[in-house]
Amino acid sequence: MISVIILGAGNVATHLFKAFNTSKEVSVIQWYNRNLETIKPYNNQVEITDSLETIKDADVYIFAVSDDVISELSSKLPFENKLVVHTSGSVSVYDLDKKHKRGVLYPLQTFSKDANIDFANVPICIETIDKKSYPLLKQVAQSLGSPTRRVNSDQRRVLHLAAVFVNNFTNQLYRVGHEITESEGAEFDMLKPLIMETAKKVQDMSPFKAQTGPAKRNDKKTIKKHLKLLKKQEHKNIYKLLTDSIQTTHGRKKL
Amino acid sequence: MISVIILGAGNVATHLFKAFNTSKEVSVIQWYNRNLETIKPYNNQVEITDSLETIKDADVYIFAVSDDVISELSSKLPFENKLVVHTSGSVSVYDLDKKHKRGVLYPLQTFSKDANIDFANVPICIETIDKKSYPLLKQVAQSLGSPTRRVNSDQRRVLHLAAVFVNNFTNQLYRVGHEITESEGAEFDMLKPLIMETAKKVQDMSPFKAQTGPAKRNDKKTIKKHLKLLKKQEHKNIYKLLTDSIQTTHGRKKL
Ligand SMILES: NC(=O)c1ccc[n+]([C@@H]2O[C@H](COP(=O)([O-])OP(=O)(O)OC[C@H]3O[C@@H](n4cnc5c(N)ncnc54)[C@H](OP(=O)(O)O)[C@@H]3O)[C@@H](O)[C@H]2O)c1
Ligand SMILES: NC(=O)c1ccc[n+]([C@@H]2O[C@H](COP(=O)([O-])OP(=O)(O)OC[C@H]3O[C@@H](n4cnc5c(N)ncnc54)[C@H](OP(=O)(O)O)[C@@H]3O)[C@@H](O)[C@H]2O)c1
Repeated sequence: MISVIILGAGNVATHLFKAFNTSKEVSVIQWYNRNLETIKPYNNQVEITDSLETIKDADVYIFAVSDDVISELSSKLPFENKLVVHTSGSVSVYDLDKKHKRGVLYPLQTFSKDANIDFANVPICIETIDKKSYPLLKQVAQSLGSPTRRVNSDQRRVLHLAAVFVNNFTNQLYRVGHEITESEGAEFDMLKPLIMETAKKVQDMSPFKAQTGPAKRNDKKTIKKHLKLLKKQEHKNIYKLLTDSIQTTHGRKKL
Repeated sequence: MISVIILGAGNVATHLFKAFNTSKEVSVIQWYNRNLETIKPYNNQVEITDSLETIKDADVYIFAVSDDVISELSSKLPFENKLVVHTSGSVSVYDLDKKHKRGVLYPLQTFSKDANIDFANVPICIETIDKKSYPLLKQVAQSLGSPTRRVNSDQRRVLHLAAVFVNNFTNQLYRVGHEITESEGAEFDMLKPLIMETAKKVQDMSPFKAQTGPAKRNDKKTIKKHLKLLKKQEHKNIYKLLTDSIQTTHGRKKL
């Protein structure tokens, strides 16, 4: 049995705790948060603490805390030479205090506390500085039922950046779709199956091959109509820039 | 039994034909295409023709042809006063020749010939100029197993425009994600579960509520790192514009 201590009690920490709790290979033996109130409801399932001084001995320490405090908090642990990892996409593994064996366990997915998550759909990027810790961390990740990949800090940073495009920016395009439809008496709900289908399509086809529509066809009449139809300058700018981008990708002339 | 004749043999026409073929309320009695080769394989299932002169008598005529030729082709039909509809999101119902009873049956989904489509996931927007034709057209759409909505030409245009954002532009963001990852030795495949989850999330949460990430948090350090990491000016521009857009939506200051 691998013993794990979780530090932090936000979106990621909470989902990790719940998932480890159903795992047979990993046992969460303690849960730290600076604010005890958040983890009190789990009091009967795990030992909880708000003091770093009382942190126990364990095989792995997982810092699922805000990016900015990873470095400082890891230096406050009152011991050394244990495997200490963080869960961030953009923080370097070297940001952890060098008195520890250091690693990263980055779950490439979007977490919110109230949305259920199936860890089978959470690819986990693993990195350790010393080779010997790698198999242990991999076992921890696999115990969640997740696919795992060895990913170095450069690749992880790039994946995190790409995630911003396919997650945050895509969600903002949904938002624009929402604004446009609702302001003109149409229903955003009508677009939901299309949103799902668009995501499904690239699961086994490249986005390049999956592209369709007026920008790719260079259908100038429709593009012009659409620009006229858009009321907000912000929406026009997004329309132009992404139409341009599609046409560059597919070798058409610029607008 | 409602008799239907399909005109055109592209993505939409082909899926419509196949779906009607399994319906109990609609029978496709003839299939027209200017190029007979495309529909020859269906010769044993339906009468085919490449001549508008030989078009038979039917309850509904569905033009699933390129937007630009809908008007001209509908005027070439050698009869009048029958229900004639097109399947376009952006063409007005009045573009059909006025000698016909006119309507629109717009399937709000992305079709490619080789990808299977379940019409239960295809909301169909229906419009007719004369009220009496509406129930007939609705029955035709429902026979596909699709949810249907009465949608006028203005609303349809807006839905089509919004579809460009949530489908074509979103797909281009996937493409950028693909470019960024593959050019840096990371795997696009790792992003696929996140792409699905992002689409799933807005099925029962508004895109406004679903938003997360550095732009929404106004995490300037990460935004700066990301802009530095991006090599192509085009990608930087998209990053800036959509970060701006998210911050406008969520009431943060501009970059
Ligand atoms: N959310 C995601 O989708 C996601 C996905 C992949 C990776 N990550 C990464 O996972 C990590 C955690 O993200 P999250 O979304 O779970 O964050 P979160 O929900 O905002 O939770 C942050 C946690 O950090 C704690 N914390 C903040 N400042 C602290 C300090 N000065 N001292 C001690 N604890 C402090 C908070 O304590 P309180 O409870 O007392 O406020 C909270 O428990 C981050 O590195 C993030 O980049 C997040
Ligand atoms: N694809 C989608 O995702 C989608 C979704 C919703 C609505 N729509 C709408 O559905 C309609 C058809 O789209 P599609 O994607 O199926 O198009 P498509 O695959 O490009 O097929 C176009 C069809 O129009 C025919 N055609 C073109 N020019 C013609 C002419 N001068 N005379 C006679 N026939 C001509 C073509 O004949 P040939 O076979 O001889 O070339 C072909 O059968 C359009 O109004 C489109 O806006 C499409």
